[in-house]
Amino acid sequence: MVNGIERPLDLLNASKGKEVLVQLKGEKQFVGTLLAFDIHINIVLDNAKEMDNGQAKKNIGLTFLRGDTIIYISPASTSLK
Amino acid sequence: MVNGIERPLDLLNASKGKEVLVQLKGEKQFVGTLLAFDIHINIVLDNAKEMDNGQAKKNIGLTFLRGDTIIYISPASTSLK
Amino acid sequence: MVNGIERPLDLLNASKGKEVLVQLKGEKQFVGTLLAFDIHINIVLDNAKEMDNGQAKKNIGLTFLRGDTIIYISPASTSLK
Amino acid sequence: MVNGIERPLDLLNASKGKEVLVQLKGEKQFVGTLLAFDIHINIVLDNAKEMDNGQAKKNIGLTFLRGDTIIYISPASTSLK
Amino acid sequence: MVNGIERPLDLLNASKGKEVLVQLKGEKQFVGTLLAFDIHINIVLDNAKEMDNGQAKKNIGLTFLRGDTIIYISPASTSLK
Amino acid sequence: MVNGIERPLDLLNASKGKEVLVQLKGEKQFVGTLLAFDIHINIVLDNAKEMDNGQAKKNIGLTFLRGDTIIYISPASTSLK
Amino acid sequence: MVNGIERPLDLLNASKGKEVLVQLKGEKQFVGTLLAFDIHINIVLDNAKEMDNGQAKKNIGLTFLRGDTIIYISPASTSLK
Repeated sequence: MVNGIERPLDLLNASKGKEVLVQLKGEKQFVGTLLAFDIHINIVLDNAKEMDNGQAKKNIGLTFLRGDTIIYISPASTSLK
Repeated sequence: MVNGIERPLDLLNASKGKEVLVQLKGEKQFVGTLLAFDIHINIVLDNAKEMDNGQAKKNIGLTFLRGDTIIYISPASTSLK
Repeated sequence: MVNGIERPLDLLNASKGKEVLVQLKGEKQFVGTLLAFDIHINIVLDNAKEMDNGQAKKNIGLTFLRGDTIIYISPASTSLK
Repeated sequence: MVNGIERPLDLLNASKGKEVLVQLKGEKQFVGTLLAFDIHINIVLDNAKEMDNGQAKKNIGLTFLRGDTIIYISPASTSLK
Repeated sequence: MVNGIERPLDLLNASKGKEVLVQLKGEKQFVGTLLAFDIHINIVLDNAKEMDNGQAKKNIGLTFLRGDTIIYISPASTSLK
Repeated sequence: MVNGIERPLDLLNASKGKEVLVQLKGEKQFVGTLLAFDIHINIVLDNAKEMDNGQAKKNIGLTFLRGDTIIYISPASTSLK
Repeated sequence: MVNGIERPLDLLNASKGKEVLVQLKGEKQFVGTLLAFDIHINIVLDNAKEMDNGQAKKNIGLTFLRGDTIIYISPASTSLK
């Protein structure tokens, strides 16, 4: 997945349809399937779960997340390398 | 509802007239019917209720919410999947 | 009042001359008559009262509120539905 | 003073040369004569006094206040209505 | 110095070469000679001193201050009126 | 690496493909290989590790970091000079 | 160095290649040689050291600092005047 990442948004584009881990300011963390994003890093996740210490705490399903609150977005498949 | 979401605002558009859960910074949470939104993610909710641990704490009726304070917006019908 | 709200600012427009409840960041709350607003959600209230647990704590009369500090604006007549 | 307020800045314009109460984020409060303002709500006060519970705590004279830190500006003459 | 202040930046312009008191967010306070400013309210002070309860705590000499952190700027000569 | 740094982004450009230390607001720290950045200082790191007192605490693999939360970015090879 | 400072960025320009003290929000402080800056006050320091009460705590070498977190930048040679 590393090949072809010229600009930061290329990683988000390559992650569409895949599971991502999203870290928000204030310690909130979500896991879900990345459906869409825009240049403000607003994103839509499907099957979003709010996480607590690696455990799903709450299912929030389909959700719109404002980019302003996001610290990082990581494709889940890469986090165990 | 997942089909046809190309951009994040598509989810908000598909949620018009439906009940949504809105999480604000600082732990405030609202449930209400999404009537309108703009590119700043300013929204209008009808029958808005301020929630406390999943219980309606206060009815605030029709309300304008500034996008700046919003963390996520989720259509309520998807949160129990 | 719900009819005709296509965009969030339509609610503010429909609330001109009416009493609104304004929630600010940091728990401040005001009630007053909405006289004017702009696209930054700067507003002018007449007969503004700073509220404390639903009681008027302090009369500040005519006042200019910067949009940046506002969380929500709700027409008072709808909050008891 | 209510007549003729079409836009929020009209109130600031009508308050030029008059005493205003300025509430800042973080509980600071000033009273002074409004000399000038701009669209960022940067303002200049003359005879500015930093207030503490309604008492003048410190005279800071002529002062430039950045709009970014302002919550509200209220003409002092209207606050006792 | 009040005469001729039409816009907030006029006060900063009139204060060039004079001693000013600069209050920052988070209680930091500086006294120094205002050499320059721009529309972002970035400023340069000469002979800047960080103040603590009205006493010079630390000399930082010539310094560039980012406007973003500034609450107010007051010409020192006016603060004892 | 110092030669040829005319503008701040030149350092980020010279650090592509190299290991960098990224300090975020709120004490979070990451080490990883810088793959991409943009003018908002959004970056992509490969083999990113969240650090705790100089020790890798958690592997998050490939990750997109929003510029808004970044304090500094330092090429790791220079930090032991 | 005071002569010729018409605009705030003139001081940064005059400080290129010289040692500067950089104060960040949240009490972090750096000393290093200023190599580059831009209009967002993003800067690059060489031989940057994180300071703790005037003592070097940690060498971070060559580093990119985002302007957003900076309170002030002062040429070190002027701080002992």
